[in-house]
Amino acid sequence: MDNGIKRMVDDRFDDFVRELVELVRRPSVSATGEGVEECADYLVAKMERWGIDAEIEQVPDGEPVIIGRVGPEGKCPTLLVYDHYDVQPPEPLDEWEYEPFSGEISGERMYGRGTTDSKGNLMAYLSAVRLLSETGKMPLSVKFLFEGEEEIGSPHLRSFVSSTDSLDADAVVCCDSELDPSGRPMISLGMKGLIYLELRSRAAKTDMHSSKAALVPSAAWNLVDALRSLRDSEGNIQIEGWTDGLVEPTEEEIELLRKIPFDEEEIRKETGARELLRGRHGLEALRGFLYEPTCNIAGLTSGYQGEGSKTVLPAEASAKLDMRLVYDQSAERCIQLLRDHLAVKGFGELEITVHGRLEPSHTPLSAPISRAAADAAREVYETDAVIYPKHHASGPDYIFTKDLGMHSIWTGCSPADGRAHAPNEFIGLEEYRKGILYACELISRFAGESSQ
Amino acid sequence: MDNGIKRMVDDRFDDFVRELVELVRRPSVSATGEGVEECADYLVAKMERWGIDAEIEQVPDGEPVIIGRVGPEGKCPTLLVYDHYDVQPPEPLDEWEYEPFSGEISGERMYGRGTTDSKGNLMAYLSAVRLLSETGKMPLSVKFLFEGEEEIGSPHLRSFVSSTDSLDADAVVCCDSELDPSGRPMISLGMKGLIYLELRSRAAKTDMHSSKAALVPSAAWNLVDALRSLRDSEGNIQIEGWTDGLVEPTEEEIELLRKIPFDEEEIRKETGARELLRGRHGLEALRGFLYEPTCNIAGLTSGYQGEGSKTVLPAEASAKLDMRLVYDQSAERCIQLLRDHLAVKGFGELEITVHGRLEPSHTPLSAPISRAAADAAREVYETDAVIYPKHHASGPDYIFTKDLGMHSIWTGCSPADGRAHAPNEFIGLEEYRKGILYACELISRFAGESSQ
Repeated sequence: MDNGIKRMVDDRFDDFVRELVELVRRPSVSATGEGVEECADYLVAKMERWGIDAEIEQVPDGEPVIIGRVGPEGKCPTLLVYDHYDVQPPEPLDEWEYEPFSGEISGERMYGRGTTDSKGNLMAYLSAVRLLSETGKMPLSVKFLFEGEEEIGSPHLRSFVSSTDSLDADAVVCCDSELDPSGRPMISLGMKGLIYLELRSRAAKTDMHSSKAALVPSAAWNLVDALRSLRDSEGNIQIEGWTDGLVEPTEEEIELLRKIPFDEEEIRKETGARELLRGRHGLEALRGFLYEPTCNIAGLTSGYQGEGSKTVLPAEASAKLDMRLVYDQSAERCIQLLRDHLAVKGFGELEITVHGRLEPSHTPLSAPISRAAADAAREVYETDAVIYPKHHASGPDYIFTKDLGMHSIWTGCSPADGRAHAPNEFIGLEEYRKGILYACELISRFAGESSQ
Repeated sequence: MDNGIKRMVDDRFDDFVRELVELVRRPSVSATGEGVEECADYLVAKMERWGIDAEIEQVPDGEPVIIGRVGPEGKCPTLLVYDHYDVQPPEPLDEWEYEPFSGEISGERMYGRGTTDSKGNLMAYLSAVRLLSETGKMPLSVKFLFEGEEEIGSPHLRSFVSSTDSLDADAVVCCDSELDPSGRPMISLGMKGLIYLELRSRAAKTDMHSSKAALVPSAAWNLVDALRSLRDSEGNIQIEGWTDGLVEPTEEEIELLRKIPFDEEEIRKETGARELLRGRHGLEALRGFLYEPTCNIAGLTSGYQGEGSKTVLPAEASAKLDMRLVYDQSAERCIQLLRDHLAVKGFGELEITVHGRLEPSHTPLSAPISRAAADAAREVYETDAVIYPKHHASGPDYIFTKDLGMHSIWTGCSPADGRAHAPNEFIGLEEYRKGILYACELISRFAGESSQ
């Protein structure tokens, strides 16, 4: 990589660390609202001072969104960088060894809420564009989209993005991400979708003496029968049309899977599971993990749940379902398929509440942003990135890939064990330094890929 | 009936009422222990004064049992009368219009905890044997078994009964019962059995992020699959051997069923059920209610049960099952069949906890005690009794029919709407008076039937 940039990162690193400390010292707890607006104002003022054209966008009933822009105007590639400036609540406070909003440095780590999730990532990119701009090496236009509600589920992100045309770009880097547990950089090329539903069966006005189980229908059995109709005993989803259009991973994707460190013994140890799903091993298990739609029972409630016995026929029973979607499954269509299935199978009276929906997303390995990130990671970390053709979890990535039609990747510099959401959250200083280099290199490489 | 007895009941009724009030004024709350021993001492002293040979039997870790005996010694029939002197807690106190332990008389009703369940029944029999003894008309030997733990599930009744030979008798009347809602007397000739179980599925050490649902097995699905294997979609129990030996009701029993008032419209209104189980009507529904084994889900618990959504893969899931047994099904055998079923179907790792077991019981209509009760009821109430060849609920009746090998019936004089277990419990004075007559007549008729 550019040795000039490398030297400058080293020369300026104390400043970059100090600036991250200052940001960490500004609480921005979206769950409670504590300090969120102040933090946004602070950050916009800083960005302006650092030569970034930045402004606050107010979101009705939401926390402010920060939009930034830097780099040459006119006909050049544009990269959108997404991250969030809000943080999780610091509780439980008595489990912190350091003040949660101190940014205290101890050993080679900076401690504090938000250091790893995700103010370190955010500042790595801001530091990178400053360096590139100041040295006249900024090869493209960078836009920033920093939201203040990620930790409460990004309730306004989609509507905000759809309401503005200021986010037009050629690709997105979502830097709210972390390194692989092996310490290697990690790049995710897509996420699963998700529908979260509640099914409620009502059979009577009130709970009854269970002798009535021989006389009137049971809400609990109705629910169990309905649930059971969704899956066969192997675990395959039995909803008509559900798996339409699901394809096999490509050879290229299988190749990526082979390179992902996957220690099934460790997973069994960590989870306590006696074996992996369907008795799978290795590549087969990993492929199921990342590529299969799921129908998970997240909760079950009915009747008497206390100690011992109570002979009751419950009036109601309910289940929370989270169903992960893959490839081109559409949340809306899947919800309709589920409704149709339940109606056809005789469970039409079940009440269905949709608590949330996220679409699946995908960006190919051949996309310029994917290649740029992989090359930049190899250059900076001196090792191949772990590339997930799909991430196992779900997120707002589809807003970029489906709504805006861009390529999008998730990659960041936070440590895998940085205690995000937990006490004593931290980022290693070396991880932060590498993150700045990685951001510089990724921007430069993306400019190169885009101009080819 | 004997007009002399009838007159004497009228003459002495004020005394009998006063004596019931005095008993009601003595709290005997087995759930808390409040006053139970004092009430037992009081009752034994009274029984002795009334010419009944009575004593307290201490039960290790339990409340005292009262045993009584009255009537001619030597070669004559013996009738055992079972009831309980303990009561439910009076709470919620602020919903009582009368002091719960006052026995206050208002209009033609006596109010107080235990009036209807079951001190009124108990005193009706004590009053009856006093009258019969004092007038030299006691035709047989009567034994009393009054326990002090019925309201907490009779935990020591079976072991107590099996430990003594002082309960030998020709038949049992369990007078802890009530009138039919139509006001007609009700006689039950048997009860369903019951096993109460908890099934617990454990799949992991802790709840996990639900993205892992594509990687490790789910405790909740394992439970749902196990439950669903117990029943087909029609609701028929699918456990191998479960229905072995179950026979059809006899013609005589069907005749009894035809005479039971059964208002399905009222049941639908009361329960809110849109239709009865399996879309049944009339006799078919009633027959299912009284004669079919059930597999009821009394409770379901797993994962997240709060508001909204949480994407969790639960580490555990559990279900409470109450399964009613009929005819000669044995609780012990059924528990084993269930264990075998789960093992064979691949659910051998489910943890099974047995919380309770009651055997089914049956006494034929042709038994002397059944005929005596039916005739006595017709005589006193001037209408046919509603005779249940089986009662829909479960109870300790099998201790008498199976353990002691006697015929046993359940019949009492309490009002169907007497608010047992609820505030403002009461017994009508006329119901109490008829109850004394009914007890006298039943004892006399049983002596007649037994000597034939």
